[in-house]
Amino acid sequence: MSDTAQYLIRQEPFYQPLHEEVALYQAAWDERLPVMIKGPTGCGKSRFVEYMAWRLGRPLITVACNEDMTASDLVGRYLLDAGGTRWLDGPLTTAARIGAICYLDEIVEARQDTTVVIHPLTDHRRVLPLDKKGELLEAHADFQLVISYNPGYQSLMKDLKQSTKQRFTALHFDYADADTEAGIIATETGTDPALAQRLVQMAGAARNLKGHGLDEGISTRLLVYAARLLKRGVAPRAACRMALVDPITDDKDIRSTLYHAIDALFEVQSDARPVARSGDPSSVPSQAG
Amino acid sequence: MSDTAQYLIRQEPFYQPLHEEVALYQAAWDERLPVMIKGPTGCGKSRFVEYMAWRLGRPLITVACNEDMTASDLVGRYLLDAGGTRWLDGPLTTAARIGAICYLDEIVEARQDTTVVIHPLTDHRRVLPLDKKGELLEAHADFQLVISYNPGYQSLMKDLKQSTKQRFTALHFDYADADTEAGIIATETGTDPALAQRLVQMAGAARNLKGHGLDEGISTRLLVYAARLLKRGVAPRAACRMALVDPITDDKDIRSTLYHAIDALFEVQSDARPVARSGDPSSVPSQAG
Amino acid sequence: MSDTAQYLIRQEPFYQPLHEEVALYQAAWDERLPVMIKGPTGCGKSRFVEYMAWRLGRPLITVACNEDMTASDLVGRYLLDAGGTRWLDGPLTTAARIGAICYLDEIVEARQDTTVVIHPLTDHRRVLPLDKKGELLEAHADFQLVISYNPGYQSLMKDLKQSTKQRFTALHFDYADADTEAGIIATETGTDPALAQRLVQMAGAARNLKGHGLDEGISTRLLVYAARLLKRGVAPRAACRMALVDPITDDKDIRSTLYHAIDALFEVQSDARPVARSGDPSSVPSQAG
Amino acid sequence: MSDTAQYLIRQEPFYQPLHEEVALYQAAWDERLPVMIKGPTGCGKSRFVEYMAWRLGRPLITVACNEDMTASDLVGRYLLDAGGTRWLDGPLTTAARIGAICYLDEIVEARQDTTVVIHPLTDHRRVLPLDKKGELLEAHADFQLVISYNPGYQSLMKDLKQSTKQRFTALHFDYADADTEAGIIATETGTDPALAQRLVQMAGAARNLKGHGLDEGISTRLLVYAARLLKRGVAPRAACRMALVDPITDDKDIRSTLYHAIDALFEVQSDARPVARSGDPSSVPSQAG
Amino acid sequence: MSDTAQYLIRQEPFYQPLHEEVALYQAAWDERLPVMIKGPTGCGKSRFVEYMAWRLGRPLITVACNEDMTASDLVGRYLLDAGGTRWLDGPLTTAARIGAICYLDEIVEARQDTTVVIHPLTDHRRVLPLDKKGELLEAHADFQLVISYNPGYQSLMKDLKQSTKQRFTALHFDYADADTEAGIIATETGTDPALAQRLVQMAGAARNLKGHGLDEGISTRLLVYAARLLKRGVAPRAACRMALVDPITDDKDIRSTLYHAIDALFEVQSDARPVARSGDPSSVPSQAG
Amino acid sequence: MSDTAQYLIRQEPFYQPLHEEVALYQAAWDERLPVMIKGPTGCGKSRFVEYMAWRLGRPLITVACNEDMTASDLVGRYLLDAGGTRWLDGPLTTAARIGAICYLDEIVEARQDTTVVIHPLTDHRRVLPLDKKGELLEAHADFQLVISYNPGYQSLMKDLKQSTKQRFTALHFDYADADTEAGIIATETGTDPALAQRLVQMAGAARNLKGHGLDEGISTRLLVYAARLLKRGVAPRAACRMALVDPITDDKDIRSTLYHAIDALFEVQSDARPVARSGDPSSVPSQAG
Repeated sequence: MSDTAQYLIRQEPFYQPLHEEVALYQAAWDERLPVMIKGPTGCGKSRFVEYMAWRLGRPLITVACNEDMTASDLVGRYLLDAGGTRWLDGPLTTAARIGAICYLDEIVEARQDTTVVIHPLTDHRRVLPLDKKGELLEAHADFQLVISYNPGYQSLMKDLKQSTKQRFTALHFDYADADTEAGIIATETGTDPALAQRLVQMAGAARNLKGHGLDEGISTRLLVYAARLLKRGVAPRAACRMALVDPITDDKDIRSTLYHAIDALFEVQSDARPVARSGDPSSVPSQAG
Repeated sequence: MSDTAQYLIRQEPFYQPLHEEVALYQAAWDERLPVMIKGPTGCGKSRFVEYMAWRLGRPLITVACNEDMTASDLVGRYLLDAGGTRWLDGPLTTAARIGAICYLDEIVEARQDTTVVIHPLTDHRRVLPLDKKGELLEAHADFQLVISYNPGYQSLMKDLKQSTKQRFTALHFDYADADTEAGIIATETGTDPALAQRLVQMAGAARNLKGHGLDEGISTRLLVYAARLLKRGVAPRAACRMALVDPITDDKDIRSTLYHAIDALFEVQSDARPVARSGDPSSVPSQAG
Repeated sequence: MSDTAQYLIRQEPFYQPLHEEVALYQAAWDERLPVMIKGPTGCGKSRFVEYMAWRLGRPLITVACNEDMTASDLVGRYLLDAGGTRWLDGPLTTAARIGAICYLDEIVEARQDTTVVIHPLTDHRRVLPLDKKGELLEAHADFQLVISYNPGYQSLMKDLKQSTKQRFTALHFDYADADTEAGIIATETGTDPALAQRLVQMAGAARNLKGHGLDEGISTRLLVYAARLLKRGVAPRAACRMALVDPITDDKDIRSTLYHAIDALFEVQSDARPVARSGDPSSVPSQAG
Repeated sequence: MSDTAQYLIRQEPFYQPLHEEVALYQAAWDERLPVMIKGPTGCGKSRFVEYMAWRLGRPLITVACNEDMTASDLVGRYLLDAGGTRWLDGPLTTAARIGAICYLDEIVEARQDTTVVIHPLTDHRRVLPLDKKGELLEAHADFQLVISYNPGYQSLMKDLKQSTKQRFTALHFDYADADTEAGIIATETGTDPALAQRLVQMAGAARNLKGHGLDEGISTRLLVYAARLLKRGVAPRAACRMALVDPITDDKDIRSTLYHAIDALFEVQSDARPVARSGDPSSVPSQAG
Repeated sequence: MSDTAQYLIRQEPFYQPLHEEVALYQAAWDERLPVMIKGPTGCGKSRFVEYMAWRLGRPLITVACNEDMTASDLVGRYLLDAGGTRWLDGPLTTAARIGAICYLDEIVEARQDTTVVIHPLTDHRRVLPLDKKGELLEAHADFQLVISYNPGYQSLMKDLKQSTKQRFTALHFDYADADTEAGIIATETGTDPALAQRLVQMAGAARNLKGHGLDEGISTRLLVYAARLLKRGVAPRAACRMALVDPITDDKDIRSTLYHAIDALFEVQSDARPVARSGDPSSVPSQAG
Repeated sequence: MSDTAQYLIRQEPFYQPLHEEVALYQAAWDERLPVMIKGPTGCGKSRFVEYMAWRLGRPLITVACNEDMTASDLVGRYLLDAGGTRWLDGPLTTAARIGAICYLDEIVEARQDTTVVIHPLTDHRRVLPLDKKGELLEAHADFQLVISYNPGYQSLMKDLKQSTKQRFTALHFDYADADTEAGIIATETGTDPALAQRLVQMAGAARNLKGHGLDEGISTRLLVYAARLLKRGVAPRAACRMALVDPITDDKDIRSTLYHAIDALFEVQSDARPVARSGDPSSVPSQAG
């Protein structure tokens, strides 16, 4: 069940190294130092970890953290079986046993207290006490712990404890510069580069509103979505509204501002329906459901 | 048990396309992009998803989200059986296995943390880690995720995280324009079109009070209810009170305002009982129960 | 176990129709529209539903809602049996299967999130997804959902969501007018009509204090209690204190006010014990217990 | 297991009727009306219920309510047995089956929501739906529900809902007048009546401080404790401190005030040890423990 | 398993009676009155109870109360066994069955609601209803209930309810006077009496800071710790810092004040290392761990 | 399973005694006094305990405390087995049985109430009541309890109770002085001593910002991380950013300040990329993930 093979990345994920991040991660891996990847939503953190796992040829076990996650969800639990109780390793334990990279995605979502179970794996002991099983598991020599973290979410209530932070080396990620990002979109979706450029310009406009009405800018992921809708024949204006604006805000003024930015970028001709009332092609009047 | 057939929509649901929503959804489906349907209560979001599932010939698995819903409710759990524990897929897992459209209705009701489990299904990996089972499920090629979302409920406490939002394309729904809505009511219930028009006028009056004493306007669904009561011989005034006003407010002033709007619309003759005391036909004096 | 017979009302409950409520409910039933019964404590809401179930010859399944109630309490759960787990339908599921009227009493007490499970039963689908059983139950043609709701309890914390409200038609109940209420009491308890009138007068005095020191007025149910104590030979003054005043308030001033109202109504002769100290016949000095 | 005999009161409890409370309870019992006993801590509420159960020859099932108490604790639950699950009636269900008086002591401690399960037993239906068992239990003809309630604890957070209160008749209890209370103490403990009088005087002093530094006055129960210590040869001053003052307050000023009241009442001779430092005979200096 | 012998105190615990506490407890025991022992941390409350249990030759069952403690933890629960479920008495039930003294240590830590289960054991009934087992246990004639309580912890959130307090007699404990306390330390640890005197002086200095930067003074227990370190050859200054100051405060100013008090008491010669930087012998510079 | 051997430290951990801490711990051990180790994150508290366990030749059982940890997690629980339930000792019970040093790491993370279970092990009784098992375990003569505690985390919500604190002797740890710390780093990682000195200087700069924008200074552990990255060929500037700055802060100004401190210390040549935009070698632009 904890089969190493299923956790191996079989195909090289598309990832374009931008700075020294590959070399820096490699050095941390060589020392088996825990790594924290910081950065905004959808900027490629998970993709990078997958790429490094592929590059290093190590299995990757990803856990999407959430507040309901208990230490047992990470470490393992007893299940009732025909012959009594049977222990089932959790993903962290499996990773420590088989020497996988264990990637705890959005670690701040986990309760601070759940995070504590990773501590003994991140200091010189590299052990995981399975208290409920009475076993002190020594981590496989190739085990490495990686966590991701979006500083934008950091709040008084949800932040990592210093005693957790100080067990990691850290890499800061951010959106790529405009040309690189357009290149990524064009490569990933086969969109016309000029169109990709305009999508990135649109993202730039929205990213400037971060903190001024928007919690986050438009992620590279959403730009890829827009490009994929364009590829399916959706008009640029509708694709941008559907993929770039409507997912990220419910505020009428912000939406209006961003719609105008779209119109300006894609030189939309005047529409039969007035924008103010029902000109929004992605706005659908109701019927009983 | 997870029989695909039972999730297929056997009859075409009544749905009248209004703008480009069908084409836009079709493009998102072609790319298997996740879709978020936004809009007020009872405007036809669920009906639209059902219609699209029917149109695409795909099974539809609907989950009414709520705060008690745990990740296990979506993903699955072990049940105790005669021969020990047995795994039971949750609705999300079933949908990912059989290639259904999984529709998470009123996603904001779910705890933000439960929502996290959908993340790996919404990025390029399209996988669902069944941690408790030790299985990494790759979604069926036809699996698609759809969520609905009522922006009117959005509060500081209940909102989707940006890291969730930025995994979806979005379609904004709203009530139909008056003629269309009246047409929908007439078609769906067989009511006289003129009467349907007056019901829609009544809804318009109430929708203007949204934010001024009413949390939400009168939905298309309630208009259909009123029409169905009329069809059963209930007088217009009583039907409107029972279906349109009394369900949505307990505020005496608002009720009075809306009752007058009903009276004006349906030109009610003076009644034997004075309105102020007991003229409300849907108001019933008490007896011990 | 889910035997239809046990849910049938065998004898006609005493219920005196007052306005059009029977006809209006009948129309909602004919259309199988969900019904919400609003009104203050003890005004006959539950009695009315029971009467309608009797009149329609349908089984009635009543659930007293409370905040601890989980979706499983409504829908069902697995029980461990000699041969493994066995599914047990909850009351809502039973009602949907056998075509009963399912009456959710005091729905606002339920957690808003538990309420969500009724949604698919209240729109055109009329289905109940039993996620844990992997079954999509289509409701019996005679299934109907009825909820009760006391607007006086409505608070910021406890109110139905608009998306729930807008799935119901509504009937407003209130206390009966004085003559009717006295008639109900006399008929139900065999009390002298003149005495019943005076009890209703007493209730009127207390209902005027609602919002001025009393959370609720005296219900018809308590008037029936007083009448039954009178029938057992308890003096009017003691019966009124014990049944009408002492249950509803601990406030000394309010109690004093209401005691005086009782004295005035029943022309009590001066008592051997002074009222201020120990004249309260329902006040009992202590001894160690 | 639910053996009626074990719940019968075998010996007449000592209870001295003071006003009409026995007759009033009898009338409520004749009508099987639910009864609420109100009054301060330790004034004899539980003793009275026990006395009435003895007098009526009915079994008495007492439940000490608490916030952790779930509906299942009252109603019953499934237990796992050799042959699978077995239903175990809770105390409320047992009482309803065997026709006992069910006494819910300190009902306000229970969560408001747990209290809801008693509702169907308190209206004309007199039924208890055992949802988890799929049984609708009709109460035995002799079943009666009694609750106790200390108005002094009433707070915004902990109060009975009106919809619960309005299902009960109520009897107000208070401490007995001085002579009666002294008589009770003398009868119950065999103390010298003059000494009992002085204990009651002491209680009077403390009861005047209620709301002025004391949450509650000294109960009759504590007076009985003091008398029992006196009977064992403890000096009056030490007995009063140990039984009357030290249990009810930690406030130095209040204790000092009450100590002086004791000294005054029992004309204590000057003591070898000064009161301010270590003259308190119930105050014990420390040693490592 | 509930073997009486294991709960007997085999050796006389060292306890030096100081006032009348032994006689007062004896009188309460003779009457089987419940006893509440009040006093600050580490002043000998538990030791006293142990001593009395030894003296009376009764088994002693101690429960360290905590907020997670449920009524089941006190009363008992069903365990699953080879042949089905088996009831296991909790410590309170065991004590009531075998006639032990049941000592609930730090009762205020328990949830107020858990405390309710002791009520029927503390009034004239002396019963413990085992609701889940359907048994009404009558307490053994020698059963007695004792609770401890630190008034210094009393807060709005954590205090005993009056209805609980008024079921107990109470004994106030405090630190012993200086000579007695020094004698206790010397006797218990074999320390030189003069040194013991100086430790007690140090405690006096700290106890004066209670409420002025310290939550609690230095307990007799910590003085015993210091004496035991001295016995092992630790220098007075280091022993006092390690046992008396560093455990009770993290505040730099308070620590500095108390360090000076130590220096003054033990006439410390000037040290090679300056106090301000690293002169603290119990302060250890870091290295990676 | 609770095999003593697996808890023995087989190799001497690297630990450089700095003051008297080894002698002081030894004295506490000789008396089996409980020890509390206080100090900031990553200063060597856990390493010291491991070293002492090795030195004393005792098994060491470490528990990383967290808020989800229940008393059962420490003490033990029943597991369901083929032949019924089976008791499994928790780590605290195992340690008390086999005579291990039980090290509760970051005790303040545990719920105050869970901490209560250690009380009977820390007074003269040295027992652990296994209430659920009905066993009163007497601790092995070599059992000792050690807890760690970071005063910097102390808050109103999370602090040890005085009744817990006053059961421990305490040792204060802090970062080593500069030369010692550089020596530790050089010895542990084989880094050039001059480079180690500069890393320590960098830490000094950051530690001065504690309380002025930083919650904690840079720990010795992070300095070791930086040295290990340097050893792998990472440039000093990148290594310091990745290991010392980026893990501990998300604040742009603080990061900028610390980056300048790095630049100053390592005399970085002007870079091709401007620092303000993308000169951060550990900052990676995004791509869709």
